[in-house]
Amino acid sequence: MIEETRQQPEALARTLGEFEGLAAYLQTRRPRFIVLAARGTSDNAAQFGRYLIEITTGIPVSLAAPSVITLYRSELDFRDVLAVGISQSGESTDTNAFLKEARAWGAATLGVTNEPESSMTRICEYAVVSRAGRERSVAATKTYTSQLLAMYLLACALGGRCRLNDLRRIPDCVAETLSLESSIAVLAAQFKGASRALCVGRGLNFANALEFGLKLMETCYVVAERFSAADLMHGPIAMVESGFPVFAFAPAGVTWPSIDEVLRRVQAAGARTVVITERAGIAQGPAIVLPSAPEGPDGLEDLYTPIPYIVPAQLFAAHLALAKGLDPDQPRALQKVTRTM
Amino acid sequence: MIEETRQQPEALARTLGEFEGLAAYLQTRRPRFIVLAARGTSDNAAQFGRYLIEITTGIPVSLAAPSVITLYRSELDFRDVLAVGISQSGESTDTNAFLKEARAWGAATLGVTNEPESSMTRICEYAVVSRAGRERSVAATKTYTSQLLAMYLLACALGGRCRLNDLRRIPDCVAETLSLESSIAVLAAQFKGASRALCVGRGLNFANALEFGLKLMETCYVVAERFSAADLMHGPIAMVESGFPVFAFAPAGVTWPSIDEVLRRVQAAGARTVVITERAGIAQGPAIVLPSAPEGPDGLEDLYTPIPYIVPAQLFAAHLALAKGLDPDQPRALQKVTRTM
Repeated sequence: MIEETRQQPEALARTLGEFEGLAAYLQTRRPRFIVLAARGTSDNAAQFGRYLIEITTGIPVSLAAPSVITLYRSELDFRDVLAVGISQSGESTDTNAFLKEARAWGAATLGVTNEPESSMTRICEYAVVSRAGRERSVAATKTYTSQLLAMYLLACALGGRCRLNDLRRIPDCVAETLSLESSIAVLAAQFKGASRALCVGRGLNFANALEFGLKLMETCYVVAERFSAADLMHGPIAMVESGFPVFAFAPAGVTWPSIDEVLRRVQAAGARTVVITERAGIAQGPAIVLPSAPEGPDGLEDLYTPIPYIVPAQLFAAHLALAKGLDPDQPRALQKVTRTM
Repeated sequence: MIEETRQQPEALARTLGEFEGLAAYLQTRRPRFIVLAARGTSDNAAQFGRYLIEITTGIPVSLAAPSVITLYRSELDFRDVLAVGISQSGESTDTNAFLKEARAWGAATLGVTNEPESSMTRICEYAVVSRAGRERSVAATKTYTSQLLAMYLLACALGGRCRLNDLRRIPDCVAETLSLESSIAVLAAQFKGASRALCVGRGLNFANALEFGLKLMETCYVVAERFSAADLMHGPIAMVESGFPVFAFAPAGVTWPSIDEVLRRVQAAGARTVVITERAGIAQGPAIVLPSAPEGPDGLEDLYTPIPYIVPAQLFAAHLALAKGLDPDQPRALQKVTRTM
């Protein structure tokens, strides 16, 4: 997991090469609606895609509930829909079943996978192959960031408010962030005794809160709740008490006031907070401060933060697992490809 | 909270009376897509609505990400969309902001609220008023089940595979389920020491897993993870260890094999399971067995289970809070109406 986390700058650079083919495929297909289907880490990438595409293109996006199709056998009206499946292995059974039905119902179908010779690439009309290199760790890292980048490529190809030239700066940004590894390892070891935690993000970084929490559950066996700052305020914040670990993604931009409000509330309750940010000194308590993040346009200052921001979280989870005496590459009870219907 | 849980049969009977008006409003409005917006417990009802409407009508449904509109100020293409906002108080700021914009973009707008004189009823073209009676407890109970029933009314009004006559049997079913209260209180007290838990459901009962977990967080300060059976298998199941409390919604029907698989896996890891079901003896370990549940059509055996099935979970959470010496009506750090943007 740590080794694959470090491979991300090269993996991302390769994913960027997929843009032209995707743009050509979409040139004649302007969808009215987009439906994203995925499971596990790939579903977190889909969650990012839903925010990114709605924000930058104005096309409404939905996350598929695969069981509607695989178990209940419902037939959906998918005219004018672009159906997008995301799966590292390309062998996720329910994601592929969704794509197959979607194509039969008239949707355009796009796959995002790391495996060029997978079932997914055969089922879809077109596939973006993320080319992150084979991922061996059960806990996905480089395929997650490559999937996020694939979502940016999709937004660009749909004419969204997002520039390919800005995306080209992301691999370097990730490389700079990797230089924080030793200090992150020291910080993570301080949470060795944690069995519960809360991961908070909002908007474009909500998916990262989901993904950080998933990594903590999978590799550290920490029961990690994941919330958008707004949903947390609607009830679950009651469970935060003295010493409760709270991790927050805190970029500059429109989400900051609501993240700030959460931090003040949980700090007042005695929580142990860690913020991931590019602005030193913005919040009380420990922070992981990124050396740089590509600047987004006005009103979208956080547009390019999600890929660099997940990197410290991946390193934190891997080093917390090591501090707990666990092997982050091989969590108990899990296999790399999970088949569910 | 307990008092309001007991009021549900009468509350549900009143909500049923909203059907004709809703059907008349929708008669000339067949949407291509439906977008549901809500927060907190109402968002769990929306999650139910998304499954129910897709399964019974074939119209694709999305859950809104309000920050796309309230923070990022994106403009979405909402032609042919029915936008539905759900809010107990009718004063949820971001849900109302979503409805206002949706209406400006050309969507048909429907509100579901318990308050006839609220901002929501003024903002929407049409409002279903759930008429559950004023809810005083911070933890929502009777407004949640009334919102679920409103989703059924919506599915019926859209011509879905769901019958009003069957819905009329639900209040009696809930009344019968309430008779289990004293045995549920005894069972709940056995989990007095729990600080973590897992709530599992799938398909039409996935929303109930979300809602049960939310109640455990809000009223018992238990860190309760909520997963669909399929997503749990994709990673988080690794965190389940000996003695870990796992609560599962286990109706007959298409979701049972995947719930059964989860139960076997977590029981092998030593979890303490409780299943909510109408079939005595289907799973090992403690079960809350409902006296009856209305039968759904072939292939949709679980169609009418979600309202009766949440009732034991509400009672369980309330009695667990009491066993922990907490006041379920007034969780720390929460107010009844939460305003977020």
